Amino acid sequence: MSIFVTGVAGFVAANLVERLLARGDRVVGFDNLCRGSMGNIATALRHPSFSFEKVDLADLAAYRRGLSHVHASSPVSEVWHLAANSDIPAGIADANIDLRDTLMTTFNTVELMKELKIGKLAFASSSAVYGDHGDRLLAEDSGPLFPISNYGAMKLASEGVISAALESHLERAYIFRFPNVIGVPATHGAIYDFVHKLRASPKRLDVLGDGSQRKSYLHVDDLVDAMLFIRANTAERLACFNVGAADEGVTVRFIAEQAVAAASPGASIQYGRGNKGWVGDVPKFAYSVAKLKALGWRPRLDSAQAVRKAVKQIAAQVSHA
Amino acid sequence: MSIFVTGVAGFVAANLVERLLARGDRVVGFDNLCRGSMGNIATALRHPSFSFEKVDLADLAAYRRGLSHVHASSPVSEVWHLAANSDIPAGIADANIDLRDTLMTTFNTVELMKELKIGKLAFASSSAVYGDHGDRLLAEDSGPLFPISNYGAMKLASEGVISAALESHLERAYIFRFPNVIGVPATHGAIYDFVHKLRASPKRLDVLGDGSQRKSYLHVDDLVDAMLFIRANTAERLACFNVGAADEGVTVRFIAEQAVAAASPGASIQYGRGNKGWVGDVPKFAYSVAKLKALGWRPRLDSAQAVRKAVKQIAAQVSHA
Repeated sequence: MSIFVTGVAGFVAANLVERLLARGDRVVGFDNLCRGSMGNIATALRHPSFSFEKVDLADLAAYRRGLSHVHASSPVSEVWHLAANSDIPAGIADANIDLRDTLMTTFNTVELMKELKIGKLAFASSSAVYGDHGDRLLAEDSGPLFPISNYGAMKLASEGVISAALESHLERAYIFRFPNVIGVPATHGAIYDFVHKLRASPKRLDVLGDGSQRKSYLHVDDLVDAMLFIRANTAERLACFNVGAADEGVTVRFIAEQAVAAASPGASIQYGRGNKGWVGDVPKFAYSVAKLKALGWRPRLDSAQAVRKAVKQIAAQVSHA
Repeated sequence: MSIFVTGVAGFVAANLVERLLARGDRVVGFDNLCRGSMGNIATALRHPSFSFEKVDLADLAAYRRGLSHVHASSPVSEVWHLAANSDIPAGIADANIDLRDTLMTTFNTVELMKELKIGKLAFASSSAVYGDHGDRLLAEDSGPLFPISNYGAMKLASEGVISAALESHLERAYIFRFPNVIGVPATHGAIYDFVHKLRASPKRLDVLGDGSQRKSYLHVDDLVDAMLFIRANTAERLACFNVGAADEGVTVRFIAEQAVAAASPGASIQYGRGNKGWVGDVPKFAYSVAKLKALGWRPRLDSAQAVRKAVKQIAAQVSHA
């Protein structure tokens, strides 16, 4: 039996795979290597229980060929679908990006699970499904769900595809609504941007927005831990969980200051205007993780600790690049 | 200026167009005539302020050609997007149907509104976005939204596409979450099925399920009235309204008895088992229309009155067919 992971060469999946291999699972991963990279899975590729294939999941025929072959040689017991567009602004400029890489990868995954009779699906959803609710504390059953980015819209659409499939052919689904996740190998995000900017111009850091934007952050080690904990412990057939740190988050200003301290001490920070970094970015955000807490899970790091750790890791990653 | 209506040869749109023409609007409508029919718009086609073109909205290039031409000759002030798959069981058997006809028609409509700078969109959404919540009274901000049909999933996805577009290029959006809508010209639904079955075998009516399934019904005349009322009276930029009668609905048993009385008095009714008619059908359903009521609108007919009227209309439609 094997666990099949989509978007395997991406940031979160690469971390997940290391944990799965470490506990003794056989893992097969696909990625189109559009945003993921082979470097992210360099360690996994040396493991005898891991195999990788370059497949574009938006191409149903290619995906069917690849997954049928995997399933015939080493039956897939469950699918972890983590492939998606990860560049939210790009998806706002061109809605086709999230249609293709965020929704159609899910749609095709669910179709093939129907064809191949694979019953269990774990899915990386997002806090972006909620849209902008101001200060309101968002729980898994909060509504309305009016996302403000195409990324959020297509994650919401993916959740709908999965919930509908549970009514006909899927057995179990685990929907993890991710917060902002940080760590290495980083490919995007505020910390990554700040560290890169400071490397290019070490004396000054320009920040989009006024720095007051506050978000909750989770370290990827905690995220992977939470997903595996939910997978192992929930009894719900459709298990939807906000995953995050149980705190009110940190500001962009805090992140910028940490990045300067780690990457270029003494650099000046210049802030822009307004509390949104870009169109479609949710300005503030409070996330209830009471359900996950009640299941018995706690993060090891809160938002501030996660940012401090990730800033050091990303600064090291960038200086070695 | 003209109002552009998609799915114009369908049941609801055909009724909407008659109201728009009656109040003096210029209307342009597209339909792929896959489920809609020219017969539904026979009256409108004789009106000098109406024009029709057969266009498949899932074909972006054809849609762009058609709508650009319309917009150049008679600028479109607003779009009423009513095109969608209307056969929910078909969409459960083959998820591609709702992907194409329910979601991609919306996706393409929103894309073309961006290209052509058309700012106002009225959208026919559905109570199917809510999924199955048992007896719980569902308001517009109720969650979670886990639809149990691909139709519901793709209506939810469409809402997400629209809410995301409001953040970048749309000016206003009106989202009408339809209940079960009845009236003529009928093309599907329980009344339509019952009347047809009784015409084929006048002595006995077989009903899927045990007849206890209860739903709220709205007559299409009231639905069109509510949509125009919301369009004229709401101040919200993203105006989402449950549209329905303010009652707890009627049972399938009531509908079957009305159909027998109108179409074949004395026929015996045979019920099946369970309280679901088909996979993906929501068994029971209570819908809060408090928001619409607060805006000042009331239906003329409650569920029972709407069913009685529609049964008579559909029996007449079928006997004249």
